Amino acid sequence: MTEKTADQRLAELGLTLPTAPTPIYTYVPFKRDGSTVYLSGQGPKLPDGTYAQGKVGKDVTVEEAAEHARLTGLYLLAVAKLAAGSLDKVEFLKLFGMVNAVPDFKDQPTVINGCSNLLVDVLGERGRHARSAIGMGSLPNGMTVEIEAVIKIHE
Amino acid sequence: MTEKTADQRLAELGLTLPTAPTPIYTYVPFKRDGSTVYLSGQGPKLPDGTYAQGKVGKDVTVEEAAEHARLTGLYLLAVAKLAAGSLDKVEFLKLFGMVNAVPDFKDQPTVINGCSNLLVDVLGERGRHARSAIGMGSLPNGMTVEIEAVIKIHE
Amino acid sequence: MTEKTADQRLAELGLTLPTAPTPIYTYVPFKRDGSTVYLSGQGPKLPDGTYAQGKVGKDVTVEEAAEHARLTGLYLLAVAKLAAGSLDKVEFLKLFGMVNAVPDFKDQPTVINGCSNLLVDVLGERGRHARSAIGMGSLPNGMTVEIEAVIKIHE
Repeated sequence: MTEKTADQRLAELGLTLPTAPTPIYTYVPFKRDGSTVYLSGQGPKLPDGTYAQGKVGKDVTVEEAAEHARLTGLYLLAVAKLAAGSLDKVEFLKLFGMVNAVPDFKDQPTVINGCSNLLVDVLGERGRHARSAIGMGSLPNGMTVEIEAVIKIHE
Repeated sequence: MTEKTADQRLAELGLTLPTAPTPIYTYVPFKRDGSTVYLSGQGPKLPDGTYAQGKVGKDVTVEEAAEHARLTGLYLLAVAKLAAGSLDKVEFLKLFGMVNAVPDFKDQPTVINGCSNLLVDVLGERGRHARSAIGMGSLPNGMTVEIEAVIKIHE
Repeated sequence: MTEKTADQRLAELGLTLPTAPTPIYTYVPFKRDGSTVYLSGQGPKLPDGTYAQGKVGKDVTVEEAAEHARLTGLYLLAVAKLAAGSLDKVEFLKLFGMVNAVPDFKDQPTVINGCSNLLVDVLGERGRHARSAIGMGSLPNGMTVEIEAVIKIHE
């Protein structure tokens, strides 16, 4: 980590964290177990409340989908901040990056890099993570990407 | 948690836990690491030993699939009880809810709610969990849903 | 565990661990949190550096795909050894076994057994794990299988 805070890095990148999703009756945006926190799957929620939709490799390009993954990463950061109090306590352990793609799609890693790169840009070394980047048959709301994560909180 | 035990809640719901699956040579229904337990993926196993099959959004409705997710949740509870000794020691941390759906299916969350709601009905606050609810290309035996979980055991 | 080391078992099986993948800018082959280690998804990388490709159930048979899962398991073992220093300290907790299959494919468990059986052959009781074996819509490079894991390191 450099001496900059995560909030300073976000500001330098011209990024603002979106409002973290609120709990639903039976499931919640995150669940903490000691210093480990499981983050529920997030998607590319647009300012109007809808989600970026379509099949990557047909309706949506790799570049567009990578932007959606970056937007999804902002939601993961928002939930992580809610869980930890400050992003400077957060380390990402693992991402599971899901792309709503056509059956012959091959470039899931480039799509999910949109999220992975953001995490390192904002959190530095603590943003580096284990991951899988894979293609789903379908996703909620027809959205293009969904990403879940496991993080660690350093107190 | 109210003062009712999980077993009392199950009885009030008219539910009986099925027999937990037995270990296979190389993999097991659950694996414990300290207080954390990883539960293998479970599916909607019917009384005759077969699984509810079909593609959700074509062969199977959302309502039917939600019932299958609820049945799958009973198997997760059965394995959790086997791991913990008593369901009153169990907290669900995370679900990964997989729906065997057609490519344009959009309502995975409603399907997986069949399981999520059951967990809260039986375990109360400790049933609330982080989750993803997503669509798979295919599932074993052609079954409609498969759900895996991470739980915590409170001693 | 018998008295044989994991390396002795590998030698008896005529197997050599491949070179573990190297870290990329934003994500890494494994991430450690205490004694728990998350392994990034691995695939069936061939000696020429390409991956075994195709849709299981159409281009690729179950038997071929199980061989690919076994090869993928060797990569998971290579990363686990890198993380732990010695395979004799490694216990597998959980596998998520993903098969790049046609929509009506039903035999994901037999495919992933190629990896699961290898882990027990090499690690004995510590190779037994919780798992899900499921079908994906698509995978990176069009590869036939991808498997990620959570392991525990015994010091």
